[in-house]
Amino acid sequence: MEFSAQQIAQLIGGTVEGNPDVMLSAFDKIESAGPKALTFLSNHKYAHYLPSSNAGAILISTDFQVSEPISATLIRVNDPYGALAQLMTMVDQLTNPQPVGIEQPSFVAPGVEIPEDAYVGAFAYIGAGAKIGAGAKIYPQAYVGNGVSVGEGTIIYAGAKIYRGCVIGKNCIIHSGAVIGADGFGFAPQPDGTYAKIPQMGRVEIADNVEIGANTTIDRATMGRTIVGKGSKLDNLIQIAHNAEIGENTVMAAQGGVAGSAKIGSNCMIGGQVGIAGHIAIGNKVNIGAQSGLHTNTPDGAVLMGYPAQPARQWMRQQAQLTRIGELIAKVRELEKQIKSLEN
Amino acid sequence: MEFSAQQIAQLIGGTVEGNPDVMLSAFDKIESAGPKALTFLSNHKYAHYLPSSNAGAILISTDFQVSEPISATLIRVNDPYGALAQLMTMVDQLTNPQPVGIEQPSFVAPGVEIPEDAYVGAFAYIGAGAKIGAGAKIYPQAYVGNGVSVGEGTIIYAGAKIYRGCVIGKNCIIHSGAVIGADGFGFAPQPDGTYAKIPQMGRVEIADNVEIGANTTIDRATMGRTIVGKGSKLDNLIQIAHNAEIGENTVMAAQGGVAGSAKIGSNCMIGGQVGIAGHIAIGNKVNIGAQSGLHTNTPDGAVLMGYPAQPARQWMRQQAQLTRIGELIAKVRELEKQIKSLEN
Amino acid sequence: MEFSAQQIAQLIGGTVEGNPDVMLSAFDKIESAGPKALTFLSNHKYAHYLPSSNAGAILISTDFQVSEPISATLIRVNDPYGALAQLMTMVDQLTNPQPVGIEQPSFVAPGVEIPEDAYVGAFAYIGAGAKIGAGAKIYPQAYVGNGVSVGEGTIIYAGAKIYRGCVIGKNCIIHSGAVIGADGFGFAPQPDGTYAKIPQMGRVEIADNVEIGANTTIDRATMGRTIVGKGSKLDNLIQIAHNAEIGENTVMAAQGGVAGSAKIGSNCMIGGQVGIAGHIAIGNKVNIGAQSGLHTNTPDGAVLMGYPAQPARQWMRQQAQLTRIGELIAKVRELEKQIKSLEN
Repeated sequence: MEFSAQQIAQLIGGTVEGNPDVMLSAFDKIESAGPKALTFLSNHKYAHYLPSSNAGAILISTDFQVSEPISATLIRVNDPYGALAQLMTMVDQLTNPQPVGIEQPSFVAPGVEIPEDAYVGAFAYIGAGAKIGAGAKIYPQAYVGNGVSVGEGTIIYAGAKIYRGCVIGKNCIIHSGAVIGADGFGFAPQPDGTYAKIPQMGRVEIADNVEIGANTTIDRATMGRTIVGKGSKLDNLIQIAHNAEIGENTVMAAQGGVAGSAKIGSNCMIGGQVGIAGHIAIGNKVNIGAQSGLHTNTPDGAVLMGYPAQPARQWMRQQAQLTRIGELIAKVRELEKQIKSLEN
Repeated sequence: MEFSAQQIAQLIGGTVEGNPDVMLSAFDKIESAGPKALTFLSNHKYAHYLPSSNAGAILISTDFQVSEPISATLIRVNDPYGALAQLMTMVDQLTNPQPVGIEQPSFVAPGVEIPEDAYVGAFAYIGAGAKIGAGAKIYPQAYVGNGVSVGEGTIIYAGAKIYRGCVIGKNCIIHSGAVIGADGFGFAPQPDGTYAKIPQMGRVEIADNVEIGANTTIDRATMGRTIVGKGSKLDNLIQIAHNAEIGENTVMAAQGGVAGSAKIGSNCMIGGQVGIAGHIAIGNKVNIGAQSGLHTNTPDGAVLMGYPAQPARQWMRQQAQLTRIGELIAKVRELEKQIKSLEN
Repeated sequence: MEFSAQQIAQLIGGTVEGNPDVMLSAFDKIESAGPKALTFLSNHKYAHYLPSSNAGAILISTDFQVSEPISATLIRVNDPYGALAQLMTMVDQLTNPQPVGIEQPSFVAPGVEIPEDAYVGAFAYIGAGAKIGAGAKIYPQAYVGNGVSVGEGTIIYAGAKIYRGCVIGKNCIIHSGAVIGADGFGFAPQPDGTYAKIPQMGRVEIADNVEIGANTTIDRATMGRTIVGKGSKLDNLIQIAHNAEIGENTVMAAQGGVAGSAKIGSNCMIGGQVGIAGHIAIGNKVNIGAQSGLHTNTPDGAVLMGYPAQPARQWMRQQAQLTRIGELIAKVRELEKQIKSLEN
């Protein structure tokens, strides 16, 4: 498939600067794109690649000021990354159509209905009482436990595991190796030093339009529900403990951990490897830097960083001050000498 | 199933305050429990929910002093969380009976005996020479390698993987995606900068009553054994490296890592995202705060926090002092001025 | 199998000190080895075990000075760990031969050729257009997506998942639960607070001789490639984000994370639980201590530690200085008093 820069501009409501007839057949990054590739400039950190880019065309912000001659055709749009997403989605749907039908051997418990436009891959397991929505795609070796509900249009990739009774909304994507609904980590210490298991009788509920990364684990509630709200996106290798609740449209980068019964608001951005303690509440639109550790309730809109987490500016100031601690020790020693000589 | 508060009190040796005839049919959290639900108060952080709770009945400590009128029936016990565990276990066994029998298609190597009361799920793989104990439950898509031993009553959930020759004790629970016995990370650097693989010829031994969380990885020993002691509980996404040894009844929260040949004692409590360096020894009853990093041997009973870890009180004091570093810099600048003016 | 110390010395070009006829039939660690076991001394931290070791023989460095009588036979070599690796590899190949053939039931898409000396385990899935190299071993329940290429001699252990179109080189080892080629974490924020998915249309390329640990995740590129270079070794539970690039012979310990588009050089050593921010470049031969966090470009040969990372020596000095901050606060208070009394 090939499209001209002009055709692409029309699809996404952009305007062309340069040759409108350049033909494009691939997407690529700005630094490696060749003459048949469409690329984009969103993060200005990469603007220095513009003059030397061999790309056929570049999606670029309407208000970006070009200071050097650029050989590529520019397609001006308000939101280059958004426009790219839109285009890639169109192409992706054309070139990677989702499979349909039931591959054999697979295991579908008696009484479970698989809609005609759904997919059940080989070696997938669909337990008794499960409900599979229209157009759902259950890839090979995935496990859908007894009584699990999978919403319309949801994709469960190869080998993802969903324990009994959990609920997955519509148009979700669950990546390979994700485990949803394993037992929460709940034990009652006994007088002899051993631990008695607390049965984990609740479930996990994933709302619509959620994406769950590869090998992420979301534990079932002790009682009640562990919740991931509508439109939230979890990266890979994240841990969400029992009875935690995550609001809507919150994004969380890889390897973060949310301890038991913590509540996180909506529209938060949480960096990689962050730890959030149990039983605390994080407000809406909170922004947490990578590797931070949160131990206390956090108001809406906070921007946090560090271990333990503090307001990001304060943390940065403190880090700068810390580099001066050696100097400070030396100065105090000097002052002590000076005072001693003054006293004498 | 419904039970009266009186019946429940009798089952667990508690005493009723309020209406003994209230009928209960569910467990729920104190803040969301309705009039048919039994809840509990263990963490006093939640005590403010007591007066407004709509729960039918609440398990509560014998010595908890009620200061406001509570509409719910109280069931007094010495250990509310333990009593809850006991009740939930009874109900769980009634409502979620473990499966029995061999689902097809599954792969059981010739010569392997599956006890009558055991379960082998569809697409499970049981390798040559494996031993499966009475009542063991091998869920769908689980992998039990050649020569693996699975003890009586042990549950291996969907898709867990156990490499050849590893030993799993009795009454263990291995959650989905856990990988037990993959190669330890051992390579010999070569003069040309490449690495030669050191074959990992040992195994993993998991003692009785151990629970291993979802997607946790425990590597086989280079030679000898990687060990998880009796009654220890590992949460999700934990890494236990080759030849590490973990004692008995030690609990470790999610995403912690134990490097090669480290030894951890018994009855330790290790927070989430903790890192423990290789070749060190941690004593018994050691308590390590979340996200800490340990690089040195640690005596029995230590309470540690921080990166690098230090005694928790000292760490807290230091964190408080660090917030004053800006003030300290300013003070020293002021002192310098004052001394200069004294000297003149 | 039994070999004499003399036979072993000949296999690896070593020289015997002590009884050359002692017969050896196992490998073990120095502290637990019995009279039929061969052990080694590489890390001098373990040298105190030498006099009391019950090992039959010990591989030891040519230039190691023995200061106390040792009952075990010594086999002197230049590189004891390398010699051990060489011997263990020989024994491992004899005692754990790799399987051959196609177990049933498995799923091999029409048109895919499985070489005669390859292995496809039960419940493995090989998608349309996949290419399987000579001698490749695809263990049970592994998933090889459409169009994936698996090089000669590569081992994909039970349940590893490789999404469509990814390329795995020759003689690689991919451990159980690893997920290669899941979607990168790319979303375009929308004006209404929701996120639009950016299709991830690139792939992952793993070069030859790479080892990928259990449950490690390597995301496919948004466009172009996510790359792991020749001879690099990744431990368990590592996250490599979309469009990241890792050079050759770089080793990375468990639970580290590399964010999107970061570039890491060759021959680096990266400790456990390290975080590397997106869009930064790390040079060659960089050494990063465990749990560090890197946010800036890093030159060749840097030795870094801390969060945020700084040169390791500077970090250690700073840590030592930090323990004196309480003392510093007290001293400044004292100086203030002294100056006040001087001023009066």
